Amino acid sequence: MQIFPPEGWRRAPFLALVVLFMAILNSNYLKLKAGYLFPEIGRRVKAFADANPEAAARLIRCGIGDVTEPLPAAVREAMHEAIDEMGTREGFHGYGPEQGYEFLRAAISKQDYRDRGLEVADDEIFISDGSKCDGGNILDILGADNRIAVMDPVYPVYVDTNVMAGHTGEAREDGSYEGITYLECTAENGFVPEIPTEKVDVIYLCFPNNPTGAVATRRQLEDWVAYALKHGSLLLYDAAYEAYISDPSIPHSIYEIRGARECAIEFRSFSKNGGFTGTRCAFTVVPKGLKALSNTGELLPIHPLWHRRFTTKFNGVSYVTQRGAAALYSEKGRAEVAALVEHYMGNAAILREAVSASGLKVFGGINAPYIWVCGPKGVTSWQIFDRMLKEANIVVTPGSGFGCAGEGYFRISAFNSREKALEAATRLKAMVW
Amino acid sequence: MQIFPPEGWRRAPFLALVVLFMAILNSNYLKLKAGYLFPEIGRRVKAFADANPEAAARLIRCGIGDVTEPLPAAVREAMHEAIDEMGTREGFHGYGPEQGYEFLRAAISKQDYRDRGLEVADDEIFISDGSKCDGGNILDILGADNRIAVMDPVYPVYVDTNVMAGHTGEAREDGSYEGITYLECTAENGFVPEIPTEKVDVIYLCFPNNPTGAVATRRQLEDWVAYALKHGSLLLYDAAYEAYISDPSIPHSIYEIRGARECAIEFRSFSKNGGFTGTRCAFTVVPKGLKALSNTGELLPIHPLWHRRFTTKFNGVSYVTQRGAAALYSEKGRAEVAALVEHYMGNAAILREAVSASGLKVFGGINAPYIWVCGPKGVTSWQIFDRMLKEANIVVTPGSGFGCAGEGYFRISAFNSREKALEAATRLKAMVW
Repeated sequence: MQIFPPEGWRRAPFLALVVLFMAILNSNYLKLKAGYLFPEIGRRVKAFADANPEAAARLIRCGIGDVTEPLPAAVREAMHEAIDEMGTREGFHGYGPEQGYEFLRAAISKQDYRDRGLEVADDEIFISDGSKCDGGNILDILGADNRIAVMDPVYPVYVDTNVMAGHTGEAREDGSYEGITYLECTAENGFVPEIPTEKVDVIYLCFPNNPTGAVATRRQLEDWVAYALKHGSLLLYDAAYEAYISDPSIPHSIYEIRGARECAIEFRSFSKNGGFTGTRCAFTVVPKGLKALSNTGELLPIHPLWHRRFTTKFNGVSYVTQRGAAALYSEKGRAEVAALVEHYMGNAAILREAVSASGLKVFGGINAPYIWVCGPKGVTSWQIFDRMLKEANIVVTPGSGFGCAGEGYFRISAFNSREKALEAATRLKAMVW
Repeated sequence: MQIFPPEGWRRAPFLALVVLFMAILNSNYLKLKAGYLFPEIGRRVKAFADANPEAAARLIRCGIGDVTEPLPAAVREAMHEAIDEMGTREGFHGYGPEQGYEFLRAAISKQDYRDRGLEVADDEIFISDGSKCDGGNILDILGADNRIAVMDPVYPVYVDTNVMAGHTGEAREDGSYEGITYLECTAENGFVPEIPTEKVDVIYLCFPNNPTGAVATRRQLEDWVAYALKHGSLLLYDAAYEAYISDPSIPHSIYEIRGARECAIEFRSFSKNGGFTGTRCAFTVVPKGLKALSNTGELLPIHPLWHRRFTTKFNGVSYVTQRGAAALYSEKGRAEVAALVEHYMGNAAILREAVSASGLKVFGGINAPYIWVCGPKGVTSWQIFDRMLKEANIVVTPGSGFGCAGEGYFRISAFNSREKALEAATRLKAMVW
């Protein structure tokens, strides 16, 4: 319903008048194109399943990157224990420190960083309820005038959260947005983008990559850190899949690169290593030396801003959940994580081989639980998605859902039971492209 | 370190130049005054305890509004069961619906609303990990040009999150901010503010109130809804303490007022009724008929924006936690919540009586777990805080921490064991003002 001003009106100077009439919503949300990728997949799968109940029973979901195996026993034991504590006045835990309990921050900074020779202090770790949240929330502490760069294809949340925050212009016909720098990842560059020629202020990097499964070599990461230090850019480094790296020469953390503490924030998650997608725990690392520019031209540390955001807009992760996450760092927990990774990467090998055998070109699936497949020439990602759903009753993720450069590709997730991975492999091999 | 431009430079047109140099932070954070209230209390208590180890052992904390009693058995049983499920492939829960599981949304909308004759649909409920988060996050979907009004005194998070989002000007000497409308709550108006004479777009209301313990009558809420409907304002109604209302004439929900579905969002939490401060679960109600103005002058529903924020920047609350929250709606859970409320309100009566006996004027503590006390004339809130800490070894919350109008007052929380409430009462009675 158009009330005021008359339809077609778009000029800003009159906004002050509008203010007199009504609470105003954040119109940046109106720039967002269609739905988020995964709800759209859900919609198509449901429509197919409703129309084909028999085929529906045979469906194998290799779409959304959700883990399938039971939560590790070490985690469950710790959570049971924590719940029993909560049943006593002495063991009851109310509000905890917003940034997370020391027992968990200390385990992380020691085992994930210091034991590997990387300098990270306990209070540079911030425990959250998920990397998706962290990735969106980090924009709260950054200014509106940063030039944002994302890899293409890319996890859609990086782009969408920037649209919502008003860091972009309008959407284009192809689904990309004005004002964002897209760093093309192609088979030619091994899905690791070239260093940009223009100046960008905030750069999202994700390795091992979702969706392509690509990893960056030490040399490539050194180039990115050098670029960031030279231009005063901030790297937002998403390492949610680091546990899947099998090649010993590939860095697990951006802080393995000298200088990264002056230019990078790292995001990690327990979703994919500990199977926490439904349990919700993750963390960010914000080094205290990391600085950005204020509106008065001062170089100021970012750490106090993120700390302030945490204490003001968040109340910490559930005590029971944090106890569960800490159990992943016990001897038993580490062994269970290793077994989970081995299981999913076993699936990845089986699926890779099957898709290769069907004659398609396959990427990823070696240092990451995602297999990135180049479809037949001239066929769109959603066409492949629909055909796969109909003919093989397999749900994949259309590559174009991750950005323009993903068109013609699709992603297969290795998160499945072995039984289903084997059955999916049989069906994939039988596909005639 | 001032690098560019030279110190003292503040004019906006040059910002474009600065952009060439560095990632930029959100300078609105730099307007924030001092620390958040509770960290400052923590600092003073720690300093006192370190200097007075004997007195430290006698400390009774009536400061931060954190529950103390064990998590209800119904909740613990449901969480244990859910964890066991997570240990099987069949019962494992990965990513859930971002807005919460249907089993919990349905229980809430039925028992908290429809069973009480209020129209709220399941999909108008959004399950989150806390009201503090919701209260901050709601600003994401609102425009930057809304005029914000808050009660004074008030939960500091409402103001701080608006400062961080750039909805205010600079801080004044007294800790208030330019550009915010403060609605004064005094003994004279029963701590329920008068309807403003100026036009405001977004109004935070909190009843039962934190910190004053005041409640609003049906008539007073009708006036607010009428104001909001007339001016197109949005009410952000924080009902986190509704379970403590004992007077049957006082509304528990803003939706008890006709027209509120067209102008109000309601925030609820399991922190204080179910003892979830360390378990983390809350919800917002966003009616589908609620609208606000876009930058092109269209009246658009807010619900799709909040839904989009949830699906894009959040991944849902832990399955185990949601199972625990749902147990609060079982017969056993409801009885346990009633017992918890009775326990804390028993403390409130004891503490109210003790402070009254010491000769100070007491408010609240009847429909809310907070007692709001007017200190002796001419003594500041922090002076009372320090004296109380030193002489009675009791931690209270200084009223001025909640805003200018709180100066001279202090808040006593009834969240404690009975034993400690009785001991605190004895000491409070002995204070000579």
